[in-house]
Amino acid sequence: MRTHKCGELNKDNLGESIALCGWVHRRRDHGGVIFIDLRDRAGLVQVVFNPESTETFAIAESVRSEYVLRVEGVVRERLEGTVNANMATGEIEILVSHVEVLNESETPPFPIESDIEVNEEMRLRYRYIDLRKTSMLEKMKIRRDVTRNLRNFLDAQEFFEMETPILTKATPEGARDYIVPSRTHKHSFFALPQSPQLYKQLLMMAGMDRYYQVVRCFRDEDLRADRQPEFTQLDIETSFMNEDKIMAIMEDMMCNLFKDVLNVDLDKPFPRMTHAEAMSRFGSDKPDLRIPLELVDIADEMKDVEFKVFSGPANDPKGRVVALCIPDGAKLSRKDIDAYTKFVSIYGARGLAYIKVNDRNGGLEGLQSPIVKFAPAEVWEAVLEKTGAQTGDLIFFGADKTNIVNEAIGALRVKIGLDLGLLEGVWKPLWVVDFPMFEWDEKSQRWNAIHHPFTAPSCSEEELKADPGAALSRAYDLVLNGTEVGGGSIRINKTAMQSTVLDILGIGKKEANDKFGFLLEALKYGCPPHGGMAYGLDRLVMLMTGSSSIREVIAFPKTQSAACPLVDAPAVINEEQLKELHIRLHKPIVSEEA
Amino acid sequence: MRTHKCGELNKDNLGESIALCGWVHRRRDHGGVIFIDLRDRAGLVQVVFNPESTETFAIAESVRSEYVLRVEGVVRERLEGTVNANMATGEIEILVSHVEVLNESETPPFPIESDIEVNEEMRLRYRYIDLRKTSMLEKMKIRRDVTRNLRNFLDAQEFFEMETPILTKATPEGARDYIVPSRTHKHSFFALPQSPQLYKQLLMMAGMDRYYQVVRCFRDEDLRADRQPEFTQLDIETSFMNEDKIMAIMEDMMCNLFKDVLNVDLDKPFPRMTHAEAMSRFGSDKPDLRIPLELVDIADEMKDVEFKVFSGPANDPKGRVVALCIPDGAKLSRKDIDAYTKFVSIYGARGLAYIKVNDRNGGLEGLQSPIVKFAPAEVWEAVLEKTGAQTGDLIFFGADKTNIVNEAIGALRVKIGLDLGLLEGVWKPLWVVDFPMFEWDEKSQRWNAIHHPFTAPSCSEEELKADPGAALSRAYDLVLNGTEVGGGSIRINKTAMQSTVLDILGIGKKEANDKFGFLLEALKYGCPPHGGMAYGLDRLVMLMTGSSSIREVIAFPKTQSAACPLVDAPAVINEEQLKELHIRLHKPIVSEEA
Repeated sequence: MRTHKCGELNKDNLGESIALCGWVHRRRDHGGVIFIDLRDRAGLVQVVFNPESTETFAIAESVRSEYVLRVEGVVRERLEGTVNANMATGEIEILVSHVEVLNESETPPFPIESDIEVNEEMRLRYRYIDLRKTSMLEKMKIRRDVTRNLRNFLDAQEFFEMETPILTKATPEGARDYIVPSRTHKHSFFALPQSPQLYKQLLMMAGMDRYYQVVRCFRDEDLRADRQPEFTQLDIETSFMNEDKIMAIMEDMMCNLFKDVLNVDLDKPFPRMTHAEAMSRFGSDKPDLRIPLELVDIADEMKDVEFKVFSGPANDPKGRVVALCIPDGAKLSRKDIDAYTKFVSIYGARGLAYIKVNDRNGGLEGLQSPIVKFAPAEVWEAVLEKTGAQTGDLIFFGADKTNIVNEAIGALRVKIGLDLGLLEGVWKPLWVVDFPMFEWDEKSQRWNAIHHPFTAPSCSEEELKADPGAALSRAYDLVLNGTEVGGGSIRINKTAMQSTVLDILGIGKKEANDKFGFLLEALKYGCPPHGGMAYGLDRLVMLMTGSSSIREVIAFPKTQSAACPLVDAPAVINEEQLKELHIRLHKPIVSEEA
Repeated sequence: MRTHKCGELNKDNLGESIALCGWVHRRRDHGGVIFIDLRDRAGLVQVVFNPESTETFAIAESVRSEYVLRVEGVVRERLEGTVNANMATGEIEILVSHVEVLNESETPPFPIESDIEVNEEMRLRYRYIDLRKTSMLEKMKIRRDVTRNLRNFLDAQEFFEMETPILTKATPEGARDYIVPSRTHKHSFFALPQSPQLYKQLLMMAGMDRYYQVVRCFRDEDLRADRQPEFTQLDIETSFMNEDKIMAIMEDMMCNLFKDVLNVDLDKPFPRMTHAEAMSRFGSDKPDLRIPLELVDIADEMKDVEFKVFSGPANDPKGRVVALCIPDGAKLSRKDIDAYTKFVSIYGARGLAYIKVNDRNGGLEGLQSPIVKFAPAEVWEAVLEKTGAQTGDLIFFGADKTNIVNEAIGALRVKIGLDLGLLEGVWKPLWVVDFPMFEWDEKSQRWNAIHHPFTAPSCSEEELKADPGAALSRAYDLVLNGTEVGGGSIRINKTAMQSTVLDILGIGKKEANDKFGFLLEALKYGCPPHGGMAYGLDRLVMLMTGSSSIREVIAFPKTQSAACPLVDAPAVINEEQLKELHIRLHKPIVSEEA
């Protein structure tokens, strides 16, 4: 039907007779001539209709935006002064000799290209129109490029792409499962996988050596901006490699990806930081290293001050007191500071103390703050010294339970860094390592796994039993610009160690057998040392395209309420279907009787 | 941990100090020396333990089948007379200087390599052991190669791989949907897609031009050998191409695939046959062209014979009478013929008449059959003439309703062809085209779509309305050796035509809007001409690996009762989960009261 794509024509095609198919992007009548920008996946080209060709011209007069046309014509140079330097095909145009309307279009519910903000529900309902935007097409293209690049890299490294089931059993990843009633097995249910974790471990036991998969995963969680009910994971596992070797291959993969897709050189090796250091310096296990601000511990300085807000947490083993120095921050207004105070309250902080350093050498006089009076000059001098504050800076303070301080001041650090444009560098990858194996859950009075229960500890079984809280895991997270893009670990490959970990987690023999007895059994039959990693592909593409949400890089995403306004899912189904599946709707008894 | 893979060593490595990791495949003690065949994904290699190295030897003595070892040693030539020509590494062996047991193994439930038939339930329960077999590994490898080859081909043709949702709305493909209760939308359900049909059409409307996806699909059907609850589809769609162009690209793709993966040259273009011709000559819409047998219509000859079994269907417009000549078939025994009679009864045939041609020129005397007496000599002569039967041949007859004759004798044709080894050629691809748009369902007294309701007819809207039964579709199936490996069509791209088809199918406005109102709406906004195809990837790989079932080429398949004996899915879930999903189990009222 066509000889070329619209967007790929240029001066090399001058004089050629061509045929194009595409959408009417814009139509202009100018001096009795009709100009149409015709659009296809490759881009736009200007096609021209002269009034001399009466029939063709009449058709051109009748077309509207988003009509689908097939045109035949000749490529010619644009007249001087009408060259469009902003358009790839801007030096040429097509003089149309024949036109056919392949399909008509009603006026689209919103314009394809414009600065008008369209609400997201509308964009998702008419996603097939939304995706016509150059910016959306570009995102889909980068997603394709990213996926292809990762596959090619892993193929070249002899990783086998293999498929694992979607209809499977509940996996112990911690989030809520989506479930699927079985028709043939009454009152039994499949679960959709939160990840193929156990299957990829089984593949290692099957001797597959190196595996990967671009795979859909499912979590029935309440949604945030970077979460979706279904998301795509690049899932990787390998045998006979330690964490250093795995991380090295993963760095090669990321460097190759960024070079090929974005023409960006990432420096190898990526820096590594222990979990403890990340929490201490950045209050986060996924620090954004582009932001040169750090949390500075000042508990020692604050232990004896009268100000209970500081001395309380300073003397509490579960408390933390930190200072966060903002260079040139003294210029922040009262309003700015109020907004930041409100911001940290989201994370449970009950206030946000600050000091403006108006004159670094001016003693107490040089400091402007409601809290200066609560501590002696030498305390503040020590704080200024520790934080390296200069005249014109501002210091924020956090003092509370450690986790609240970390979350609140950690988030504040990022927010202020972005607000004030303090970014250093464009891409800052980081390995976070030496995570604790477990964290103590006060509420349920038990240990929880920080990663998942199949992560190997870096200590012996005996050490693990003796002090679970002190044990570190052989896990590693890849953080990019403050977003966790991937995580992995060396897995447990011996039955005894696996049982010990399940014991510590308080998972009894029966529960363990019900949930993953097959894994425990499989460990008995020659399980090789193995480990791997999983990347959130949507998140990675979101970062690489500079998008604000993973919904921007998914062709047909769900809304924040886990629905699809386009196909109108989920939807009601009929009674017969439910009956066949041996389930019924849960309704109040009273309505059942009625 | 290793310098090489076991299976990749050869004489080029002689004298090298190497390290290997792998599984103990076989252990032999011979003349005080221990030989172990060590196995990894790349293959086997012989490693040798001398008693002089006491410590190493002691470890070697302790290992059993499927232990995981790491060995260090030197590659040396095997002694003359001990070279194993059946082994890729058979010219060399490793003299071990150091060994480490990475993991132990209990005795596997069945041996990894042996001719002993292991029942499938057992194989699936211990799939991680079953997959260690060379034959299974090879199948997984070919599956990987096939998928990669198809992707590379389509990428090079500028098809964009794009992902579509798994949590979606019921699609009208005709099979039963798997459904997923929504937690956030009370009493609403997602459906798992039977195919991404409507999404890929929406992507064409979005201007994506050329799309493909290797995608999981789901059908809750009662299973046969080549069906699974979840299966993988290569899904393709393109805009601005007619069926000839699409079929040409698909032929290029298949030729490229067979050449690269199997080193087989398929001839282009693939033959094409109309649906009508396929049914007439082979009784099947997916004829196996390797088998040179054909159904020959003899209704005209049988119209006036006394034998009601033949004359009845011969005079019935819905009946069919055929002869199937089997070269050299007169040698078939009474027992063989009884078995074939039983075979056709599966398809509803009430008997299987036959004639043995003992002497082609011997008149009635030359024919051996209980039915010869029921018709005059000239009738049989005409039949012999039409079928081209020779002395020593056998002719089977089918006479019944057309669909019974087609199914029974069509299947018999294939069975006999395979039984007698009558195959001509190894790979016989075939396009079947010109399918009817609709078939009349006597039971529900309505038209059903032969493909799906979005398939374009090859006639005008007016002709379609005037005689739906006569209308042909723009659909095409790709048949390979009697298996449908793919199917596709040009789709309807105009609202009016789509409405007409839905009308004919008796799908009312409300039902149409509920089910796919979004598609009908999307057609209004500039839908390009488009079409595509979908391949059953599992089936294709099954054929290419010579496997008997798609379960053989799926890493973790379900059983015929749609269960996974490995992870034990589906499984019961707890009441709380059900409650959160607003459903309950359907149990008899009496038990609810109790």
